[in-house]
Amino acid sequence: MTEEEFLKYVSRYHSKGSPVVRTEEEDCAVWEEDGFRLFTADAMVEGVHFRWAYFSPYALGWKLAAVNLSDIAAMGGTPQGALLILGWPRVPEKSLIEEFYRGLTEGLSRFGAGLLGGDTVKSPVFWAGLFLFGRATRPIFRQGAQPGDLIYVSRPLGASAAALRWFEEGKDPPEALKKAHLFPEPEVELGRRLAEAGLVSAMIDISDGLLLDLSRLCRASGVGAELENIPVAEGATEEEALSGGEDYALLFAAPPGKEKDLFRAIGDRPLYPLGHLTQKAGLISFRGRPISARGFDHFN
Amino acid sequence: MTEEEFLKYVSRYHSKGSPVVRTEEEDCAVWEEDGFRLFTADAMVEGVHFRWAYFSPYALGWKLAAVNLSDIAAMGGTPQGALLILGWPRVPEKSLIEEFYRGLTEGLSRFGAGLLGGDTVKSPVFWAGLFLFGRATRPIFRQGAQPGDLIYVSRPLGASAAALRWFEEGKDPPEALKKAHLFPEPEVELGRRLAEAGLVSAMIDISDGLLLDLSRLCRASGVGAELENIPVAEGATEEEALSGGEDYALLFAAPPGKEKDLFRAIGDRPLYPLGHLTQKAGLISFRGRPISARGFDHFN
Repeated sequence: MTEEEFLKYVSRYHSKGSPVVRTEEEDCAVWEEDGFRLFTADAMVEGVHFRWAYFSPYALGWKLAAVNLSDIAAMGGTPQGALLILGWPRVPEKSLIEEFYRGLTEGLSRFGAGLLGGDTVKSPVFWAGLFLFGRATRPIFRQGAQPGDLIYVSRPLGASAAALRWFEEGKDPPEALKKAHLFPEPEVELGRRLAEAGLVSAMIDISDGLLLDLSRLCRASGVGAELENIPVAEGATEEEALSGGEDYALLFAAPPGKEKDLFRAIGDRPLYPLGHLTQKAGLISFRGRPISARGFDHFN
Repeated sequence: MTEEEFLKYVSRYHSKGSPVVRTEEEDCAVWEEDGFRLFTADAMVEGVHFRWAYFSPYALGWKLAAVNLSDIAAMGGTPQGALLILGWPRVPEKSLIEEFYRGLTEGLSRFGAGLLGGDTVKSPVFWAGLFLFGRATRPIFRQGAQPGDLIYVSRPLGASAAALRWFEEGKDPPEALKKAHLFPEPEVELGRRLAEAGLVSAMIDISDGLLLDLSRLCRASGVGAELENIPVAEGATEEEALSGGEDYALLFAAPPGKEKDLFRAIGDRPLYPLGHLTQKAGLISFRGRPISARGFDHFN
């Protein structure tokens, strides 16, 4: 069973109907009550998602905050508060706790969220799970994009996967790659501005690779995509930009002809046009040739 | 470092000030926004909190729901929604997933809450963490009890610990004990009624044993306690009732002279009076003799 199959299978157990707006196939669960409330959760397990050989406790805390913040960003939301569940294999050393909590709370507070508590348990292996909640006045979903919409990504891709390649070979990556992997920047401000501007038809963050996350946006919207340009981060391969994952960039669709309004709304920061959406539901092509939605899958 | 010391140490990283009302030393984090919002998280790890030898996946799902629901109950709140983080050692079997999710969602929905999503990751060991949120119009804290207040518990204690004793000896416990350990009943309805009645000065749920949880209520309220009666569940020892833990009963304090109003407010269901609170801050005595706040500690 792949992760997608698993998630589809368990979706029958998710709540349906008001006040629940969305559960699965979104970056956050969406709950309508005095506006929209967003809920997301992500976990990192030692030996599966990271190794202490190249992760400091501070970086791990920051990254756990960032991957969750990125889910809120992908809905155009504002992060508010978080709860942490921590599994420790032994009585934790003070310096490790100190650094982990400092990274986590500095990551959260930089984007306006606070740590409210949680639970700590003994576990044969170290893992950390974060639950983050926030609000949105006008959430942007994966669903809603139209054929003809232009597709953008918020920064060049592949740097995080390139850093991992260096780390796994036991080598120290160049600083920019290292930063992309250890300290990804969630696009909270961009997501909020895009949501406020009302010019974006669908949005997702890139956690499992451009192709896989684009295919999710396409499936939710019932469209296909024609990619012409892929912005590849310096030091990364095109393959890493297409399928590497852990970029935490925003990927979104916007109707054509509003480019000026779009750039004004986001303060003229750079965006990277990838191509446009088509009527061919589920079909993604790159420079005229069909391409499969490969990407990181947590079970395979 | 004990769990209490750990929690005290990391409390410096918790958010302070509005809209945060409480973080540590409460059953839930409390956030004030359109009333009070409650957030709690609890995890269960294979080999630490349970063994598959005596836990079915269905029971595990139910119990994970129950321990979190009990935290909301202890604040007098109403559960709303939950997110699950699951660590699986292998590609999960459908029957196991099915039963676990069924137990979890039946436990949640029985008390008005729904499962909204979460995250699933690979892990060398099985663990499950649940985040639950809810609301309260008038939350009841551990703090607020006064010397002279009467102390009550919502049911006889020790049955869960007694069942664990049987299980750990490889034996099948009597049905009532087994049910107390595998399918504890969170006191959501009682908690809500007590909060609405406004007759309760402080409340906590018993997860780590009567003495330890009573000592937490006493410390938060700056009082001591004199215990006269301990309701021991049939098949449990007095020691298990005092310190066994995982009872998920409600323990609360109420000013004397309002007993009739109290019983009317909760629909005349039984309550078990334990004794009363004193001015001797931090001192708990049982039948006139001081007793230490022993109980289950997750690190020691």
